[in-house]
Amino acid sequence: MKTRATLLTIGDEILIGQIVDTNSAFIAKQLNTIGIEVEEILSVKDELFHIIEAFQRGIEKSDIVIVTGGLGPTKDDKTKTALCQFLDCGLVREEKVIENIIQLFASRGYTKELNNLNQDQALIPEKSTFIQNKYGTAPCLWTVIEDKIVINLPGVPFEMKGLMRDEIIPRLKSQFNSETIVHRDILVSGIPESDLAILVEDWENELPDFIHLAYLPNRTSIDLRFSAAGSAEEFLNQEIQNQIDKFKEIAGRYLVSENSGNAQQILGEILKQKGLTISTAESCTGGNIASLITSISGSSDYYLGSIVSYATTVKTSVLGVSQKSIDEFTVVSEQVVEQMAKGACNVLNTDVAISTTGVAGPNRGEDNKEVGTVWVSVTDGKQTINKRYYYPYLDREDFIKIVSNNALNLAIQFVRENY
Amino acid sequence: MKTRATLLTIGDEILIGQIVDTNSAFIAKQLNTIGIEVEEILSVKDELFHIIEAFQRGIEKSDIVIVTGGLGPTKDDKTKTALCQFLDCGLVREEKVIENIIQLFASRGYTKELNNLNQDQALIPEKSTFIQNKYGTAPCLWTVIEDKIVINLPGVPFEMKGLMRDEIIPRLKSQFNSETIVHRDILVSGIPESDLAILVEDWENELPDFIHLAYLPNRTSIDLRFSAAGSAEEFLNQEIQNQIDKFKEIAGRYLVSENSGNAQQILGEILKQKGLTISTAESCTGGNIASLITSISGSSDYYLGSIVSYATTVKTSVLGVSQKSIDEFTVVSEQVVEQMAKGACNVLNTDVAISTTGVAGPNRGEDNKEVGTVWVSVTDGKQTINKRYYYPYLDREDFIKIVSNNALNLAIQFVRENY
Repeated sequence: MKTRATLLTIGDEILIGQIVDTNSAFIAKQLNTIGIEVEEILSVKDELFHIIEAFQRGIEKSDIVIVTGGLGPTKDDKTKTALCQFLDCGLVREEKVIENIIQLFASRGYTKELNNLNQDQALIPEKSTFIQNKYGTAPCLWTVIEDKIVINLPGVPFEMKGLMRDEIIPRLKSQFNSETIVHRDILVSGIPESDLAILVEDWENELPDFIHLAYLPNRTSIDLRFSAAGSAEEFLNQEIQNQIDKFKEIAGRYLVSENSGNAQQILGEILKQKGLTISTAESCTGGNIASLITSISGSSDYYLGSIVSYATTVKTSVLGVSQKSIDEFTVVSEQVVEQMAKGACNVLNTDVAISTTGVAGPNRGEDNKEVGTVWVSVTDGKQTINKRYYYPYLDREDFIKIVSNNALNLAIQFVRENY
Repeated sequence: MKTRATLLTIGDEILIGQIVDTNSAFIAKQLNTIGIEVEEILSVKDELFHIIEAFQRGIEKSDIVIVTGGLGPTKDDKTKTALCQFLDCGLVREEKVIENIIQLFASRGYTKELNNLNQDQALIPEKSTFIQNKYGTAPCLWTVIEDKIVINLPGVPFEMKGLMRDEIIPRLKSQFNSETIVHRDILVSGIPESDLAILVEDWENELPDFIHLAYLPNRTSIDLRFSAAGSAEEFLNQEIQNQIDKFKEIAGRYLVSENSGNAQQILGEILKQKGLTISTAESCTGGNIASLITSISGSSDYYLGSIVSYATTVKTSVLGVSQKSIDEFTVVSEQVVEQMAKGACNVLNTDVAISTTGVAGPNRGEDNKEVGTVWVSVTDGKQTINKRYYYPYLDREDFIKIVSNNALNLAIQFVRENY
């Protein structure tokens, strides 16, 4: 039997687009690791009627409802009131919550007496139990309603994450004897999504029932995601690998990576395996490649640093790009991008370096021929790959994201081909 | 009369946490600019039953339903089939969609004949009209159901964004004569959320009915968001400003910024206003500060670049940090962070520089320094602020985010105090 969860996020900030709901993706991933499937994700306003209706929908559709947000001490926090109305019960004061808040405030250097609003955070719905929150003032609420569970967590991401990892996942794991869910992505490039689907049609039709395939197209590539549910994780992983091996026989020439979704992770693994160090020299990506590489724990083993040469003067003075090349070919040129990469290798003393130069530009309107053009280079000082891309219609954010991802993939290709 | 919208996102990738739903925040923000309020956001699986039920819920709750995802050419794309079942109609072929796909493929260098799956993308539900998508192969669908509208957009962000801006917002704006919705955030720090709420209680109780206040606590600060709805934008902005002026009389000493939510934006405005340039020298933030600063269009006016000195050798060889200081005080110390910032000022030739050094964890740093300790420095070569923070319980992602935000706010404070 599959165990199903509904995720509810409470808060106007989500509905006006001020905040991207990253909590739900975190919770969904954590639940998947213990075999719990997310049925749907619903975001509603800080209004009693909407919150109560969302609770109702959640327990009708799922075994578990995980709610984030609306537990704070201020007027716009209405989740606890809504929960009491939904449960038809009152509130009871828990002294241990007060003790926790006093400790927490002391550790942050606030030593004055607790005010009424903080006192109110110790009020717990009579039909709920609470789980102490060592990361913040609002306790987690755990409510059993017949055979369903409603779990209320604070919406502040670091509090929610800590509670999920320390408390919620261990409890749910011991309570539900769920199936395992396994996901694996591979990355395909150089073929339109529809042509790929036709090429692998027979193979796709013969996939076992417990393996589900999804196409996730990006601008320049396609992620193919395999999902499998069952009782034995090792068996599922092996079955997915078998299917990938068959896929390779049919469409291997389009396969960029057997472990996709995260080029910085793959690059890191290859560099560690080959014992190589890497650096970056970034212009239009403005530090985003450095930021992606260092988002991986342990990246200090192979990543030494970056020169973000946003201004032309930094390209010449720090990276040693020749002013003559800039005058002759412009700053967005093959000559300049290659000198940038070689400069990074030298200055930062690494085996390999990645560089980017291009014009991310304003969204639209400016009459500049070069907006959208970008050069990427990967070098080890001797061998070099330079590649030009052209994305005139992307907005600034997507431009930076896609160029960074291309650069990381080019580096993977470079290391695979040369080492 | 308020116009209300429901946002639906279709796709298993959201529900397994593989992808964070950034589309909904973008759409919500765009709708708010033309006075349309988002009622709720719902994410469901790629399954017919769930999609049809979500359509039904959307048109019951809202005037407009905007659906993203599931329009692609492959098997896991089921939104069009669901829409036909929901509308109880068949499909009709539109030749103009075929022409668009041929043009689009040609521009990407694919010149072979269209396959069946792409041919199928020209099939449009009989009861819908289509809007040409110049960014991708799947056309946008526009369906009128009595007095409600259902709009289907592709889920690929750059296609969705282009269609929203070019087509959907102009059409909705001309059709709905909505109120304007105005949001403004201010940033408060140095006081717990509950104490702030009590301090400003009388003022908050006397806010006019059309102004709504929300508390958005972060780890180290609180965003206060004012939202106002009405017919005259200028009037609403003035009323919010009046309320902020009153707030300042009561709690002005805790106010960090009158325009919050985006320290990199505020820093950029101040630097431009004062005619100053800035650079960064990043260790534990790994390029994230550079990335935030350069996410602002026009940042090349004041931002020259960064030295991401992830390895200790880069701190000494490029930034000129003394090996003696590192040996004596360790790499995570006030002495080293200050030398890093001064080094960036020199090497990158800027008026001001920001630096960071710390251990993001979960692994220990090069010299086995304790996880969670971080030093931030801002200098102009003469005057310097150094500040120490300690976040032992944050995960890597939040640690980098919070330290970067602190560093930007410290730079704002530095420039305000010294220039």
